[in-house]
Amino acid sequence: MRIVPQAALLESYTPDPQRVIEAAGRTCYRSTPGFNTAGAFCKMLIARGHESVLEHAFATFRIVCDRGVSHELVRHRIASFSQESTRFCNYAKDHFGKELTFVEPPGLTGGARDEWLTAVSSAELRYLALIEMGQPPEIARSVLPTCLKTQLVMTANFREWRTVLRQRCSPKAHPQMREIARMLLDQLLVIAPDVFDDLK
Amino acid sequence: MRIVPQAALLESYTPDPQRVIEAAGRTCYRSTPGFNTAGAFCKMLIARGHESVLEHAFATFRIVCDRGVSHELVRHRIASFSQESTRFCNYAKDHFGKELTFVEPPGLTGGARDEWLTAVSSAELRYLALIEMGQPPEIARSVLPTCLKTQLVMTANFREWRTVLRQRCSPKAHPQMREIARMLLDQLLVIAPDVFDDLK
Amino acid sequence: MRIVPQAALLESYTPDPQRVIEAAGRTCYRSTPGFNTAGAFCKMLIARGHESVLEHAFATFRIVCDRGVSHELVRHRIASFSQESTRFCNYAKDHFGKELTFVEPPGLTGGARDEWLTAVSSAELRYLALIEMGQPPEIARSVLPTCLKTQLVMTANFREWRTVLRQRCSPKAHPQMREIARMLLDQLLVIAPDVFDDLK
Amino acid sequence: MRIVPQAALLESYTPDPQRVIEAAGRTCYRSTPGFNTAGAFCKMLIARGHESVLEHAFATFRIVCDRGVSHELVRHRIASFSQESTRFCNYAKDHFGKELTFVEPPGLTGGARDEWLTAVSSAELRYLALIEMGQPPEIARSVLPTCLKTQLVMTANFREWRTVLRQRCSPKAHPQMREIARMLLDQLLVIAPDVFDDLK
Repeated sequence: MRIVPQAALLESYTPDPQRVIEAAGRTCYRSTPGFNTAGAFCKMLIARGHESVLEHAFATFRIVCDRGVSHELVRHRIASFSQESTRFCNYAKDHFGKELTFVEPPGLTGGARDEWLTAVSSAELRYLALIEMGQPPEIARSVLPTCLKTQLVMTANFREWRTVLRQRCSPKAHPQMREIARMLLDQLLVIAPDVFDDLK
Repeated sequence: MRIVPQAALLESYTPDPQRVIEAAGRTCYRSTPGFNTAGAFCKMLIARGHESVLEHAFATFRIVCDRGVSHELVRHRIASFSQESTRFCNYAKDHFGKELTFVEPPGLTGGARDEWLTAVSSAELRYLALIEMGQPPEIARSVLPTCLKTQLVMTANFREWRTVLRQRCSPKAHPQMREIARMLLDQLLVIAPDVFDDLK
Repeated sequence: MRIVPQAALLESYTPDPQRVIEAAGRTCYRSTPGFNTAGAFCKMLIARGHESVLEHAFATFRIVCDRGVSHELVRHRIASFSQESTRFCNYAKDHFGKELTFVEPPGLTGGARDEWLTAVSSAELRYLALIEMGQPPEIARSVLPTCLKTQLVMTANFREWRTVLRQRCSPKAHPQMREIARMLLDQLLVIAPDVFDDLK
Repeated sequence: MRIVPQAALLESYTPDPQRVIEAAGRTCYRSTPGFNTAGAFCKMLIARGHESVLEHAFATFRIVCDRGVSHELVRHRIASFSQESTRFCNYAKDHFGKELTFVEPPGLTGGARDEWLTAVSSAELRYLALIEMGQPPEIARSVLPTCLKTQLVMTANFREWRTVLRQRCSPKAHPQMREIARMLLDQLLVIAPDVFDDLK
């Protein structure tokens, strides 16, 4: 049994995204870009609520989280996902031998943490036993807990990333989701500061 | 610990759906419906690949399955979902007392079934213990297994239901998903036989 | 040359839509409906911003407008459309003989209206001449004006209708679009008052 | 009156798109890329019908066409558009003076071409007269013909571009649409040959 932290890693994005947005947006009005006007143009679009233009730029992240958080993430329908399959991945044949990997929820201490560790290592044992008995992974997955680590690649356009972040950075979001959302925001701010600035 | 079978129940649908589709489709060509021509018109649309017209009719199902199957279902992005939340439902306060509900995967016999039962009842105990210790449901869910029963309401238009069924009735689909898909198809065939006929 | 007014006609909708929404929404929290609680439940969902549940109910309208307004309508991507095709409809073979149908924009008086009438009847003549010379409708459409009457069937869920109405009832919308939007709102208020109330 | 040819220009795309697709796709199976395996991996995804992975790569085109073709293009709902607005652009204040720009449909000769030229220059005159009389562009647009030149920026992921091209390169497509589709395909083949190869 291994425990890993959550992670989010920017894998790909539209080169020079603010300039792409500006070029698309100016088409609507037939105006022409000036020197270094992309950032101000993006801020103007957002202020006016003309966010559809932000859809011309994209970012792709690799995200490590548990199955519970991933179940919430894949609910964003204006996005694309490729996720580790519990049907086709045999977790008994991990890179690190017969050991499964989990994400620990925050705030567990003392007896609660012991309960959690017992639960998780017991689930791991049962999963390995079922595989050993010849059950296929897609049946054995039945006993895998929500905290099983998963990995997914998620792509969305900037307008949708803004929607995701507004919702997932909120104090009403699940604490683990909020942690992922903050990682996403930090990296998006680097590539398109004027598009994500107001969400800090 | 309770074990329930999967289920799918038609909750709502477009009244007289084939006639709605015919009326919409004839708009494109400015043709007029005859007496009792809706069924043949739907078959013609499908034969010609003009499936966009099927989007004007809808069906809503209530589905009982496990969290694993529901994770696959919610990946259909041209559909709408309302699902029991593991964050806000406290499974320790079930209608039936301190007892969780699960869906058993098919084909478990002898020792494999014993392993599964042990895994599931152990997970149930740990969940209840974590709740007892004051952990909120959104943290305690961490130990809930994939086979936890869930309930969701799923709405899609007929074009999308055809996509769902083509994919989920296939022998490559998960056996529990296939069972759900067959239930959906059976009920859709009753309300719009000419739209779903070819998928039997 | 005929001039017709714009129109919007409710063709189909989810029966008892507020009850369908309530039943779906209560699934998330595992609560149970009371006597006549659907309306208040819908209002609560909207107040809390939990609008995804409104996606389980639908309405289908037949809309008569000009090609300019229809070009804006079909930009709503979370909706389904079946529209009269300028490629396949031969407007020289109308139900009413060799006569095309147009929608007059508001506010034209005096000389401006004369210009408009001249423009439109001249376009009609050229279209009929091109068809007469053997050009197919998909080429002759080249000279058809933006004010050509078109008919389309548009289906959307209630969440999306709310988005459409918020945007299209606004004073910033095109005056002809605003007229259509008011017709849609009036009819939606009849079938689901508690869902569309706040948009009046 | 100016007549321009249609055009499509690649403005932006995912850098190294086939490698991004491979990295995302291998996540599902937890396999690792080899040396120079991206092309073969993309072909395998397409052969197996696992096209969702192609959604992680994007291309943005600037397209010049007439309003008729643009009306068909914007019907692709899994794409993003920014288009010259007939409401906010005053075509009487073009870069080139009081002159509008049009796209000529293919195959017009002799008398048919004369009819078309008459139709178009007459529409231009009426539009300019209406503007002169103080009508706003959003009302004067009423007389603009379908062959008015428009410019739009369209972004879609590779899976959707494949759908667009399959449909729009077909002999059943409008001849002007087919011309645009061939331009798109030619440029997509340069940036991701193994993703678009089978559509030639």
